[in-house]
Amino acid sequence: MSSAPPSPAFSGSVPELIQKKRGGGTHSRAELDALILGYTRGEVPDYQVAAWLMAVCWRGMTPQETGDLTLSMAASGDLLDLSSLPHTVDKHSTGGVGDKTSLVLTPMLSALGLTVAKMSGRGLAHTGGTIDKLESIPGWHAELSDQAFLRQAREVGLALVGQSKNLAPADGLLYALRDVTATVDCLPLIASSIMSKKLASGAQTIVLDVKVGAGAFMKTLDDGQALAQAMVEIGRHAGRNMRAVLTDMDAPLGYMAGNSLEVQEALATLHGGGPDDLRELCVALAAEALSAAGMPNNAEERARVSLQDGSALGKFRAFVAAQGGDPEYVDAPQRLDVAPGRAELLAPRAGFLEGLDALSVGRSVLLLGGGRERKGEAIDHGVGVELLLKPGERVAAGQAAARLYHRGGRGLERALELLGAGLRIGDTQPQVPPLILGRVGEG
Amino acid sequence: MSSAPPSPAFSGSVPELIQKKRGGGTHSRAELDALILGYTRGEVPDYQVAAWLMAVCWRGMTPQETGDLTLSMAASGDLLDLSSLPHTVDKHSTGGVGDKTSLVLTPMLSALGLTVAKMSGRGLAHTGGTIDKLESIPGWHAELSDQAFLRQAREVGLALVGQSKNLAPADGLLYALRDVTATVDCLPLIASSIMSKKLASGAQTIVLDVKVGAGAFMKTLDDGQALAQAMVEIGRHAGRNMRAVLTDMDAPLGYMAGNSLEVQEALATLHGGGPDDLRELCVALAAEALSAAGMPNNAEERARVSLQDGSALGKFRAFVAAQGGDPEYVDAPQRLDVAPGRAELLAPRAGFLEGLDALSVGRSVLLLGGGRERKGEAIDHGVGVELLLKPGERVAAGQAAARLYHRGGRGLERALELLGAGLRIGDTQPQVPPLILGRVGEG
Repeated sequence: MSSAPPSPAFSGSVPELIQKKRGGGTHSRAELDALILGYTRGEVPDYQVAAWLMAVCWRGMTPQETGDLTLSMAASGDLLDLSSLPHTVDKHSTGGVGDKTSLVLTPMLSALGLTVAKMSGRGLAHTGGTIDKLESIPGWHAELSDQAFLRQAREVGLALVGQSKNLAPADGLLYALRDVTATVDCLPLIASSIMSKKLASGAQTIVLDVKVGAGAFMKTLDDGQALAQAMVEIGRHAGRNMRAVLTDMDAPLGYMAGNSLEVQEALATLHGGGPDDLRELCVALAAEALSAAGMPNNAEERARVSLQDGSALGKFRAFVAAQGGDPEYVDAPQRLDVAPGRAELLAPRAGFLEGLDALSVGRSVLLLGGGRERKGEAIDHGVGVELLLKPGERVAAGQAAARLYHRGGRGLERALELLGAGLRIGDTQPQVPPLILGRVGEG
Repeated sequence: MSSAPPSPAFSGSVPELIQKKRGGGTHSRAELDALILGYTRGEVPDYQVAAWLMAVCWRGMTPQETGDLTLSMAASGDLLDLSSLPHTVDKHSTGGVGDKTSLVLTPMLSALGLTVAKMSGRGLAHTGGTIDKLESIPGWHAELSDQAFLRQAREVGLALVGQSKNLAPADGLLYALRDVTATVDCLPLIASSIMSKKLASGAQTIVLDVKVGAGAFMKTLDDGQALAQAMVEIGRHAGRNMRAVLTDMDAPLGYMAGNSLEVQEALATLHGGGPDDLRELCVALAAEALSAAGMPNNAEERARVSLQDGSALGKFRAFVAAQGGDPEYVDAPQRLDVAPGRAELLAPRAGFLEGLDALSVGRSVLLLGGGRERKGEAIDHGVGVELLLKPGERVAAGQAAARLYHRGGRGLERALELLGAGLRIGDTQPQVPPLILGRVGEG
C-alpha cells in the first residue's frame, strides 16, 4: 500500500479558492489538493469547505475538474496497489435492496480470467452488505492480511475483505459535512464520492451498476445517465477501463431479501438456475467488464456459459474455502440457516401487481432483525423476505404476495404492515420497464 | 434597553433551511430567527451558516426576506429604546477617508429640532472614527451612563457615546464568517449587516451616506444605488423613516485627514465657512433627514441657515461641554494640538490633478500614527494630511500638492511615498463628478 503524496505547492488562500468557484472558475489539481488534503489533515476548517461545497453545487465542475477532485480524494488516504495482479476488476452498485449481484458476478469474472481483489462494506439501514451476506456461510470470514489477500487473489482469482484500510478518508469527511449542509444532491460531488473509493481500491477495470427509480438515489433515467457518464469520465481520467450499466430499481432484484436467503438465491444462479433478472444483470455486467478489460469477443456468450458450465460455481467454492468457509454449503445451500417462522402478506384485492416498493422490503428485513441501524450491531442472517410475485403479474384477492422468514418477536407485525404499505395493486396490467435501461461507456 | 425576544417556534432542521435557500426558496421570519438567533447562541454551527451564506449569494433574497433577516440580526442583542425622545435621527456613512460629516451634521440636526442619541465607533485601519476625532478636544469623553445619555439627548438634543452595548452581535459573527468564506460581496448580506446595527440603535429616522467610487466599497453608481435602495427598504420594513444620499468617494471630503485637523475643518464649517463639498454634503443630508422626519418645508434652506446663524455651532458647544470637553476650543479651534512637523508632497510634473486616492490618504494618516491597526491601540490626534489641491485643478511641476503634519519618526517617509503613489496628474482637465451622485427614498 502506498500512502498519500506530499502536500502540493499552492500558495493562495482558501477564501481565494472559494471565491474562484463562487465566480464560476475552474480549479487546478493543485488547488483541489490544497483544499481536500488540507481538510483531511484538519488544516482547512469545516466552514470554509461548507461554503466551497455550496459554491460547487451552484457553479458545477468541468469533467476534468471532477476527475481531479476525485484523484485528490483518493490520494487523501491509503492507495491499494494491485499492480502485481493480472486484469484486476472491481464492480460498484449505487445501492439496492436484495442486490446479491456481487455474490454471483465476482466468481463469474474470476472464471472468465479476470482477478477480483475487492474490499467490501457491511450493510447499514435498509441496504445489505456483501460481507454480511457471505457471513451466512459457516466459517467464512473477511479478515485477511494484506499478503494473504493478494496471494488469494492471485491463486484463486477472487478475494473479498472488509474495509480495513483508510481508503479515501476525505470522502467520509466530505460526506458527513454534505449531509448537514444540504449539499448531498450535487452530481460532481456524488460522482467523486463514489469514485474516490473505487480509485483508491486499485482495480484496473471498473464496472458500475447505476440504479434508477423510485427506490434509488437517482430517480430518473436522465439523472442516472448523467451520474454514470460522470463516473465513467472520472475513471478514464484516472486511466481506468470503465463501463456502466443503468438498471431499473423500482422492484428488488430476484425474489429474496435477507442474508442467508440471498446467498441461497445467488447459489441457485451459480448452479445454472436462479431468477431471470439476477442472471441477466450478472451476464450484462460480466460482459461489460470483459469488453472494458479488452476481451470483447463473445463476451456475453462467455459470461452466460460461465454460469452453465459450473466454472463460476467452482471459483465461488474455492473462494469460500480459501476464506475459512465450509464449501459443503455451496453445494447444499438449503442447509444454510433460515429462520423457521413464516408469515405471509396477502393481497387485499385482485388486480395486477404494479410494484412492491424496494425501500419497504429493505426496511422490513431490518425490522425482522436482518440488518443494523448502527455500525457494529449484530444481525440475524436467517430472517428475510421472499417476494412471491413480480410487477406485472396477475394477483387474486387474498393471494400471498410475499413471505416473511422470522423468529417471532417485536418487528414482525411492523414488517408486515410496512410491506403491505409498499404493495401497489392496480386494475390494468402495468408496463414493466426492462431491467437494463441503458449502457454508458461502450466503444 | 430591552433584550432580544425569546426564540421563536420553528420545528424544522437547519439542513432543511439551507436546502430551501439552495432551491431558491424564500425564508420566513421564524426560519431566519431560528438560524440567526441559533447561530448567535452557538447552537447552529459555523459550517451550516457558511453553506447557507453561499446559498444566499447564489439565490439572493427578496426585499421582505432581507428586511426580516436584518430584524433577526438586530434582535440578536441589545435594542436601544429611544422612544422617550422626540424625533430621533441617526446617520450612517458606508465609510470614508477624511469623512468628518458627523461632526458637522449632528449639531445641525439637533439645531433643526431633531434629537441625535447616537452610538459611534472608533477608527480602524485607514478609516477614522467620530469618537477618536472628538477626543482631540481636551476633556471630551464618550463614556456616559444609560441615564446620562438619554438625559443629555433630551436636554441638549445631541449625545454621542462609544459602542458599549451588545448591538446586533449576530452581525459581528456573520461578518467574521463571511470574511473567510468568500461571502462578503453579496447585496442582502451587506445591507443587512449595516442596517442591523442601525435598527438596534433605535432612531426613528435614519439617513444614509452611501459612498461610491474607487476608494469605496461600492465601486459603481449602479452598485451604490442598489445598496442604498436595499437599505432604505430594510429600514422601512422596520417602520423607520429612511433616506439615502449617494456621494462620490474618489477624493477625500474636504481638505483635512487626521483627528485634530478634521475637527478644525468641521468647526470652520460650523462657524459658517469650511470647504464647499463638506458643507454641501451636510446640508443635503440634513435636508433629507428633515424631509424623512416629516418636516420637508424649506428643508435645505433651513439646514443652510443653521450653519450661518450659529445655531448648529451653539449645539456643538453645549454638546462638548455636556460630555466634559472644554468649550473654549470650539471657539478657538486653532488651539487644538496639531503636530509641529511639516512635510510637503510635491507634484512630479505639471498638468491637471486627476485624483488623490482616498485610500492612500487614509493609509498615510495611519503611517503617521493617527490611526490604529488593531483595536485598543493609542493614536496621535495631532498628525494628519492636508490636501492642497482638489481634482480638476491645474498644478505646476514641483508645486506642493499635499502637506503632512507629523512628529518625525519612522512612518513619515513611507507616508510620503504612499501619498505620492496615490497622486494622479494628467495632461487634460478631467471631468470631476459632482459630490452628490443621487438620492434614494424621496417621496
